[in-house]
Amino acid sequence: MSLVALCPGTFDPVTNGHLDIVERAAKLFDRVVVAVIENPSKEPLFSVEERVTMLKEAVAPIAGVEVDSFTGLLVEYARRKGTRIVVKGIRAVSDFDYELQMAQMNRELAGLETCFVPTNPNWSYLSSSLVKEVARYGGDVTSLVPAHVRARIEERLG
Amino acid sequence: MSLVALCPGTFDPVTNGHLDIVERAAKLFDRVVVAVIENPSKEPLFSVEERVTMLKEAVAPIAGVEVDSFTGLLVEYARRKGTRIVVKGIRAVSDFDYELQMAQMNRELAGLETCFVPTNPNWSYLSSSLVKEVARYGGDVTSLVPAHVRARIEERLG
Amino acid sequence: MSLVALCPGTFDPVTNGHLDIVERAAKLFDRVVVAVIENPSKEPLFSVEERVTMLKEAVAPIAGVEVDSFTGLLVEYARRKGTRIVVKGIRAVSDFDYELQMAQMNRELAGLETCFVPTNPNWSYLSSSLVKEVARYGGDVTSLVPAHVRARIEERLG
Amino acid sequence: MSLVALCPGTFDPVTNGHLDIVERAAKLFDRVVVAVIENPSKEPLFSVEERVTMLKEAVAPIAGVEVDSFTGLLVEYARRKGTRIVVKGIRAVSDFDYELQMAQMNRELAGLETCFVPTNPNWSYLSSSLVKEVARYGGDVTSLVPAHVRARIEERLG
Amino acid sequence: MSLVALCPGTFDPVTNGHLDIVERAAKLFDRVVVAVIENPSKEPLFSVEERVTMLKEAVAPIAGVEVDSFTGLLVEYARRKGTRIVVKGIRAVSDFDYELQMAQMNRELAGLETCFVPTNPNWSYLSSSLVKEVARYGGDVTSLVPAHVRARIEERLG
Amino acid sequence: MSLVALCPGTFDPVTNGHLDIVERAAKLFDRVVVAVIENPSKEPLFSVEERVTMLKEAVAPIAGVEVDSFTGLLVEYARRKGTRIVVKGIRAVSDFDYELQMAQMNRELAGLETCFVPTNPNWSYLSSSLVKEVARYGGDVTSLVPAHVRARIEERLG
Repeated sequence: MSLVALCPGTFDPVTNGHLDIVERAAKLFDRVVVAVIENPSKEPLFSVEERVTMLKEAVAPIAGVEVDSFTGLLVEYARRKGTRIVVKGIRAVSDFDYELQMAQMNRELAGLETCFVPTNPNWSYLSSSLVKEVARYGGDVTSLVPAHVRARIEERLG
Repeated sequence: MSLVALCPGTFDPVTNGHLDIVERAAKLFDRVVVAVIENPSKEPLFSVEERVTMLKEAVAPIAGVEVDSFTGLLVEYARRKGTRIVVKGIRAVSDFDYELQMAQMNRELAGLETCFVPTNPNWSYLSSSLVKEVARYGGDVTSLVPAHVRARIEERLG
Repeated sequence: MSLVALCPGTFDPVTNGHLDIVERAAKLFDRVVVAVIENPSKEPLFSVEERVTMLKEAVAPIAGVEVDSFTGLLVEYARRKGTRIVVKGIRAVSDFDYELQMAQMNRELAGLETCFVPTNPNWSYLSSSLVKEVARYGGDVTSLVPAHVRARIEERLG
Repeated sequence: MSLVALCPGTFDPVTNGHLDIVERAAKLFDRVVVAVIENPSKEPLFSVEERVTMLKEAVAPIAGVEVDSFTGLLVEYARRKGTRIVVKGIRAVSDFDYELQMAQMNRELAGLETCFVPTNPNWSYLSSSLVKEVARYGGDVTSLVPAHVRARIEERLG
Repeated sequence: MSLVALCPGTFDPVTNGHLDIVERAAKLFDRVVVAVIENPSKEPLFSVEERVTMLKEAVAPIAGVEVDSFTGLLVEYARRKGTRIVVKGIRAVSDFDYELQMAQMNRELAGLETCFVPTNPNWSYLSSSLVKEVARYGGDVTSLVPAHVRARIEERLG
Repeated sequence: MSLVALCPGTFDPVTNGHLDIVERAAKLFDRVVVAVIENPSKEPLFSVEERVTMLKEAVAPIAGVEVDSFTGLLVEYARRKGTRIVVKGIRAVSDFDYELQMAQMNRELAGLETCFVPTNPNWSYLSSSLVKEVARYGGDVTSLVPAHVRARIEERLG
C-alpha cells in the first residue's frame, strides 16, 4: 500500500512552522503533496505561482514531497489526487476546535480522513499573518522563515 | 406560566443542525420563536424574506414554533416579544466561549436568560457557511439541509 | 404542558453559585427538583441527609423548587420523576467540555435533554471544594455560602 | 517503507469509540498495534489478559491489526516495537490539551511522533468509564460496546 | 529598579473593563503606560486623538499612569519606551489562546515579557465592540463605560 | 515601592519549566519568594525540606529570589509575607481555566492579585509528574531538570 497524504494550506508565505509539519508528514507517509489553496475571496501577499515557487525551494531537501495548487473543495481535489488522507499541523487548542469541524465535514462529505500533527512548540506562536505583520513594520523575520522566503518578503514589503 | 423562548440566528440558510435545536427547544418550552437577525453589515446569500420563507417550510412539522425576523438588539426584540428566554445551540467549546460573553451581556443589559442546548454530535461540524462553501464548488449538500433549502441554494449558486 | 426540570449535583455543601442557578432554573421551568447525588465512591463532608436539609432551607424562598436525593444513574432517576430535562450551571469553558460529554451520553441512553445556564460571573470561581478548602484553613466563607450553611461548615471543620 | 503505528490505551474495556479509531488507523498505516497499558497504580475492572482477549475478538475483522500489551514508558515500548508513530483518537478539545503535552514529551524524549485522529462525532461522549458507570447501575450498553464485551461486563458487574 | 509596564490596546473606546486592568497594573508596577494602537487597516469609531483624550480623563484618578499612542510593532514601541513588560487583561479562555501566541512571538522577537492579569468577572463579557453595538441600537451603556465616554459615544452614534 | 511576588507551587521536584518562570518573575518584580506548599493530603516524592533544599540550589544564580514553604491558605501566607502579588506560569490553555478560578477566588477573599506568565514553549509539556513517571521507568530526565535534581531523583527512584 503506497499512501499519499495532502498538506493543504494558504502558505502566504511558507514559514518554518509549515516546514516542520511537512517534515513530520514525510516521515509518516510514503508521499506528501503540499497543496496551495487558491481562495479567490482572500487577497494574498503572493500569487499562487509565487507561493508554489517558494514552497518548492523550501521542501526540496525533504524526500517524497511534491508541491501543487488547487481551487475548489479539498474533498474534490483529494479525489482527483487519489488520496483519502489529509495532514494538518496543530499549534494550539484554538486551532483544533475549528479544524475538528472541518475534518468532520470532510469525512461526512467524502470519507476523507484528517490526521493532526502537533507543531514543534518552538513554532507554536508562528503564522504567515504574524510574519507579514512583523515584516511590514520593519521587524526581523530571519528566524521565522527560510532565507529565500525572507528575501521575497523584503522585496515585496520593503 | 406559558413560556416563550427565542431562537435567534442568521439562518443563511437554515441547516439540519438548526432544525435539531429548534426541535429540542420546542420540547423544553411552550412556544418557540425562531427569529432571523437582519444584520445590515453582513452580505447574506439570501434576503431576510427568503430566509424566513425557507424556515417556515422547514419548521412547519414542529408544533408550537413560529418564525419571525428582527433588526437591532436582541434584548430589545425580546422585550417586544414579552420573553426573557433565549435558546442557543452549542456545537463545540469554541462556540461556547463567545456565546457565554453574549449571554452575560444580555443578562446585564436586560435580565435576558440564555439557555444552551448541545447540538446532536452528528451536526457538530455543520454551519451555514460550510454549506454555502460546499455548494459553491459543486459539492452535494443533500444530507446537510432540508430538500427545499437545497433546491434554493442550487438555484442561487448555480 | 407543565415542565419539571432536574438540577442534579453533589451539593457538599450548597454554595451561592448553586443557588444562582436554581433561581434561574425556576424562572425557566414550572417546577424544579434539586437532586442530591449519593455517590458511594466519594467521601463527602456532609451526609446526603445533611445536604438535603441545608438545601431545603436555602431554596425555601424560591417558588416552585423542591429538594430530593437519588442514587444510581441520572437517566433512571429522571424517568422515575417523569421528566426529560436537566439544567446545569456552567461557570467556565472547562466545565462545559466534560458536561457536554455527559449530556450527549444522557440523550443517547434515554432521550434526556440538558440545558446549560451560565453562572453569574461573580460566582465563576466558586465551588464546594474551594469553600471547604478555605474553611478548613480558617478562611472566611461568609460571602460564598448562605449563613446557615456557613454555620454548619464551621461546626464540622472548626 | 512499511509503517507500524501504535494505538496505546487502557481499554478497560474496549468501546465502539476505540474501534472507530483502530479502523481509521488501519486505513492510514500498513500495520497497527493496539497496545494495552498495564498501569500498576490503577485498579482496572478487567485484567490485562482479559482486556487483550476482548480486543483481539473485537479487531479480528480489521486487516493489519494486532493486539499486544506493555508496561513502562510508551517511548520504550515503541523502541522495542521498532516504530516511531503513535495514533490517538480525539473526542473533544479537552482531550487534546492533555494529549498535546504527552505528545510533545514523547517527541522530546525519543523522537516519537503522535498523529491525532478525530473520533466519529457519534462517539464523542463515549469512554470506558462512562460505560462502566452505566452498566454498574443497570443501564443498557448495547449501543456502546461490541456484543461480546457487553456480555463480559454484565458477567463482571452482574 | 523602577519598572514601566505597557498596557497596549485599541481602546475604541475605553470601557470599565479596561480601567479595571489599568488599576491592577498600577498596583503591580511603578509606572504604567496605556498605549493606544494606531492600526491603519481598521476603521475605528474614534480617532487616535479622541481615544487618547478619553483615556486621559478616565485614568486621571489612578496614580502612576500615563497615556500614549503608537504605530507599528509593539516590540519596537517597547524598545523606544525602555521597557520589557506588557500587561494584558484576560477575560476568558478564548482570549488567552490568541494572546499566548502573541506573547510568545514578542518574546522571541525582542525578549518582551507579557504578564496576563484576569479581568474582574463582572466585566468578563465586556468589550469595546459590544459597547458600540449596544449604543448603535439605542441600548443603555451607563454601566459599561465612564460617564464622559458614554457622552462621546452618544454624540457620535446618536 | 518595593514589590515582592510569590511563586507558589508543589515543586516535587523543581523542573526546568519552574526555573524558567522564576527567572521571568525575577525580571518583573524586585523580590521573588518561591513558596513550597505543604499539602498534607498529597503524598509527595520528596519532603518539604528536600524540595526547599533542591530549589535553593537551583535558584541560587538568580538575584532577588528566596525560597520558603508554607501550609494553609495562600491568601493567609501572602498576608504574613506582606505581599499582594502571585506569579503563576501558564503552559497551556487548560492550565489557565483552573488557575483563573483560583485567581478570582484569591482576589475575592483577600485582594490578592495574580499575574500569569507564559512558560517558554520548549517547556510546555513539562511537569513534575511527567518527570517522575519518566524516571520511574528508567527514562532519561537530563534535559528536563537541573543536574542536582536529577541525581536526587535517581537516588530516590533508582
